[in-house]
Amino acid sequence: MKEYLAARQRLVDRALDRLLPKANVKPRTIHKAMRYSVFAGGKRLRPLLCLAAAESCGGSVEQALPLACAVECVHTYSLIHDDLPCMDDDDFRRGVPTSHKVFGEGIAVLAGDALLTFAFELVTSVPGWGRYPVRELVRELAIAAGSQKLIAGQVVDLESEGRKISLPLLKFIHRSKTAALLTTSIRLGAMSANATQTQLRNLSEFGEALGLAFQVIDDILDVTQTTEKLGKSAGKDVVSEKATFPAVVGLERSRRAAQRLTEEARIALCSFGKKAEILHSLADYLLKRDY
Amino acid sequence: MKEYLAARQRLVDRALDRLLPKANVKPRTIHKAMRYSVFAGGKRLRPLLCLAAAESCGGSVEQALPLACAVECVHTYSLIHDDLPCMDDDDFRRGVPTSHKVFGEGIAVLAGDALLTFAFELVTSVPGWGRYPVRELVRELAIAAGSQKLIAGQVVDLESEGRKISLPLLKFIHRSKTAALLTTSIRLGAMSANATQTQLRNLSEFGEALGLAFQVIDDILDVTQTTEKLGKSAGKDVVSEKATFPAVVGLERSRRAAQRLTEEARIALCSFGKKAEILHSLADYLLKRDY
Repeated sequence: MKEYLAARQRLVDRALDRLLPKANVKPRTIHKAMRYSVFAGGKRLRPLLCLAAAESCGGSVEQALPLACAVECVHTYSLIHDDLPCMDDDDFRRGVPTSHKVFGEGIAVLAGDALLTFAFELVTSVPGWGRYPVRELVRELAIAAGSQKLIAGQVVDLESEGRKISLPLLKFIHRSKTAALLTTSIRLGAMSANATQTQLRNLSEFGEALGLAFQVIDDILDVTQTTEKLGKSAGKDVVSEKATFPAVVGLERSRRAAQRLTEEARIALCSFGKKAEILHSLADYLLKRDY
Repeated sequence: MKEYLAARQRLVDRALDRLLPKANVKPRTIHKAMRYSVFAGGKRLRPLLCLAAAESCGGSVEQALPLACAVECVHTYSLIHDDLPCMDDDDFRRGVPTSHKVFGEGIAVLAGDALLTFAFELVTSVPGWGRYPVRELVRELAIAAGSQKLIAGQVVDLESEGRKISLPLLKFIHRSKTAALLTTSIRLGAMSANATQTQLRNLSEFGEALGLAFQVIDDILDVTQTTEKLGKSAGKDVVSEKATFPAVVGLERSRRAAQRLTEEARIALCSFGKKAEILHSLADYLLKRDY
């Protein structure tokens, strides 16, 4: 499995390298900055889920690949903007300096903008499939990345800093900030395989539960891990009084929540049988992180 | 004509009000911020061009309206991000405080992101027309707003601050930063009318010339007008040593360039005859600004 994951990550990396504008395209600064963050050592979790979802519905990895790259571009844009001094103010991400530390704030804002825009361009590079014309795919991505999902999560997160927040509000943040794009990654993969409505619904449940589990684990790791191991500043959430699961319900309940959510995710895959093997393995891979 | 323009602006304003998420949709901050900048007194030049282009190709204003709103959202996003302290650092725009002065930098970044994302969602609300499925429309907008057009212009502009730049480079900035989105506004309108390739080519030439003329005039106004009349800080370009037409070729040559470009724009409309009346009037309206 480990080898399989590495191979898939390489496949995604090669596709991103092929699809993104080259670093020598003018103006060079912006294309260097876009590539810097995209190739700063991400786990490619969203693209891997996208590809695995396509396969679980009988589709091909090749067809889903541009969509997998599009969600990674949206994810990377959101990280660049989240890390800005006016947002979470993070100097490190995935073990390397953040975009604004390397290129300055202005270019970092623009590199994020450019990756978001490029994601939509990428979606128009696929032909669309059966029930899912490109119009539907663009709509799916725009809503997931929009002011009531991804951006909503970031807004509420920003506004709740230093305040005590309720569990429902915390779940809203996690659902919007993490689960929405993760679920859309999976749905776009399924759409590339012309999935049925039932398949799409089951996969959405899987994505929702997995996304929440993923974020809960991330919160836990921030408390329990060292900066070196995380590749980003550990304990950052505590220092900046961020809303996190351990802060709201404690470490033990957070761990149980992560396990329960992963179980929920697994159950949503039942109807896929052996076809969901890779999706199961990806869920495992997520849960096995040392929290 | 003045009345006609005012009526059209109201039509666009009403459509934007109808289409944008309401200010009480949660999280309220982001939707308030999106609306604040969209309704901060813009001239709606791009939407008006979009609608007029649709009509010049025999299409309907109603069909083009969501696309007209989409380009205005992209334009507004670019203004919000351009005005940030890490970019042009502007406190006023269209006579009112800029987004980051009202909502803070973090929300201003996110409001820009949200408007850019929403623009793509808006494009998916149209059905697509004949030669131009939604896929083509999204692609057109993504390229115009992308790292080799709108964002490229902003990058080079940012990098050239305080430096002496050449006329070709200045033209590159203006083409990318202003003319590209203006031309796309016109092209999207034409596409909603299922325009022929020839119509689209002529309108692109019109847009390119008009966009350059518009930016040259903007540069001139920055030198010759008061802050009060401009609604934004006058002389700002000079103070921040921005690359402008008057700075590179002088005021007199800039004025002649604006007139020549407007003439070029007119010529590109020849084949449309009376059908391009409104486009001609819009070009007039632009040129008649007191420069």
